[in-house]
Amino acid sequence: MSSQGQNTGRRPELRHDPVTNRWVIFSPARAKRPTDLKSKSPQNSNPNDNSSCPFCIGNEHECAPEIFRVPSDPSDPNWKLRVIENLYPALNRNLEGPCDEKQDMGVPGLAMGGFGFHDVVIENPVHSVHLCDMEARDIGQVLLAYKKRIQQIATVESIKYVQVFKNHGASAGASMSHSHSQILALPIIPSSVSARFEGMNEYFEKTGKCSLCEVQAKELLIDESTHFISIVPFAATFPFEIWIIPRAHSSHFHEFDCEKMVDLGGLLKLMLRKMSLQLNNPPFNFMIQTSPLQVKESELFYAHWFLQIIPQLSVVGGFEIGTGCYINPVFPEDAAKVMREVNLPVEG
Amino acid sequence: MSSQGQNTGRRPELRHDPVTNRWVIFSPARAKRPTDLKSKSPQNSNPNDNSSCPFCIGNEHECAPEIFRVPSDPSDPNWKLRVIENLYPALNRNLEGPCDEKQDMGVPGLAMGGFGFHDVVIENPVHSVHLCDMEARDIGQVLLAYKKRIQQIATVESIKYVQVFKNHGASAGASMSHSHSQILALPIIPSSVSARFEGMNEYFEKTGKCSLCEVQAKELLIDESTHFISIVPFAATFPFEIWIIPRAHSSHFHEFDCEKMVDLGGLLKLMLRKMSLQLNNPPFNFMIQTSPLQVKESELFYAHWFLQIIPQLSVVGGFEIGTGCYINPVFPEDAAKVMREVNLPVEG
Repeated sequence: MSSQGQNTGRRPELRHDPVTNRWVIFSPARAKRPTDLKSKSPQNSNPNDNSSCPFCIGNEHECAPEIFRVPSDPSDPNWKLRVIENLYPALNRNLEGPCDEKQDMGVPGLAMGGFGFHDVVIENPVHSVHLCDMEARDIGQVLLAYKKRIQQIATVESIKYVQVFKNHGASAGASMSHSHSQILALPIIPSSVSARFEGMNEYFEKTGKCSLCEVQAKELLIDESTHFISIVPFAATFPFEIWIIPRAHSSHFHEFDCEKMVDLGGLLKLMLRKMSLQLNNPPFNFMIQTSPLQVKESELFYAHWFLQIIPQLSVVGGFEIGTGCYINPVFPEDAAKVMREVNLPVEG
Repeated sequence: MSSQGQNTGRRPELRHDPVTNRWVIFSPARAKRPTDLKSKSPQNSNPNDNSSCPFCIGNEHECAPEIFRVPSDPSDPNWKLRVIENLYPALNRNLEGPCDEKQDMGVPGLAMGGFGFHDVVIENPVHSVHLCDMEARDIGQVLLAYKKRIQQIATVESIKYVQVFKNHGASAGASMSHSHSQILALPIIPSSVSARFEGMNEYFEKTGKCSLCEVQAKELLIDESTHFISIVPFAATFPFEIWIIPRAHSSHFHEFDCEKMVDLGGLLKLMLRKMSLQLNNPPFNFMIQTSPLQVKESELFYAHWFLQIIPQLSVVGGFEIGTGCYINPVFPEDAAKVMREVNLPVEG
């Protein structure tokens, strides 16, 4: 939380988002002007020294086992992307399926074996290429790789949720500088996902409508493509947070077809390039916020997936850790205006 | 998330804590030995250059208005601690009480005016003195100042929850190096607090017992005092997270008397000193996890307050942001053993 502020004349406001089911404090007194907000720790995450990078083409033998590659021939040395096991997985795919095991520690908690999948998607064979440098159709291939891997994992009955995420820059959690994303398949439904589903369900019960289909707000819009819109959410948790939302109501990311994935690739590229230019190449995370597996489609009528992008511009402190309530110095409509007006140079 | 690991031979495990109502992944394959885990960014937050510090004795005129001081005479220049307004408050105490205002942005979210209190507790007049350097009874005075301020705020009917927290070190969110803590009084009950109360209530309904009164586990115990125990929680979200729990069942921090506050001051000092020595003076946060105001005591039979301490040893990435589920490389019983065995030098 910054203590350097200026009085913008605007009053603080609390906003509740029905999708995340959370309150956020908007506090302009703690802000610089939105256009002055820049990353102080540009990620510098792709130095040219790639001699020891196991994700680079030619170093495949240094990686954990490959799950699949594109193109699909496993002996083709000229791959465009690879999906591999994580060498240091958070969960273990070789354990038996999960079983509830009460711990005998004299405490009331529950424990279960750490069964699950933790994969890495190497997005490009070349060390120095970032995701936003790639062609829209190649970013679409990365999204299609997520889709294919989720479809494979969905056949394992004990997996309840799959989180796809990307950490870009060391301070956003990336331990490898070569552009990659991760897929973590869990035998539980985590708390933020439950909260999101309760929020969307409550909104549907109250209004008979989907909370994300309802987002049509011009003030919050950044850009749009054939099948998607990109907005700053009404109660954005973080400054310059972006959601890319499919226009068509759909509960699961992995239901989308090839054409839509390429379209999404183009809008994702645009958002990442705008963010990088406006915010000084910040560390960032993106997450695909989809629906639990093993739930009938008919039970998910209120659910709408989206892709969430968060630039890392501020430090999280005890208030946020203690309450789950965040303080955002930038009003979403101001952030959306700034992002709309970013003029990108022509790529060449 | 670190990718440098060693195989400890232990299997990953998922644990659910009934108090936080959250799952945590324990992943020893991603860990060093617990005793090797040290902060890489020691906080360096109290440099000797205090010439421009508004929190230092003699610079009171540079601060926002004082609320009270100890000793209580406002003209006594030799104060021991001061509670002041935050110069850049997240919420505004001068707004009218909160009123629901639907925003006309064509979006389904809710908004309300940002009414609330945001105070700072200057814990000591001297710039170079950290909280853990102070005598137990002076730390007790800081805790009594929290109590007094919460009691004052509790008279404002529209305030629903008060979060007391301390950020120590820049990377834990502290923007001032002079030792201080903060009090943020909210017109809403934030999501993590609701989740905690649902968790504790569910446990009570299932067992007829309080989830925190039940914690008697020797393996998780670090230390104890007359009125408190300190443990690593069974499903600790962060490595070396510590909870200080009152032995007596009590829903609100501010119900505790002077004697118990001094006792708590002693145990808090001990935990901060052990943490500093074992983990290389890490940035940290602590939070007082109390109960909502304006709720009848009789409705809070399942609620038990505690003080939560979190050293900042790792970076949070997209997985944690997306799911609210954290990956902890250190099993709580291992962290508790390490903390039990820290030998503190005699202070002098």
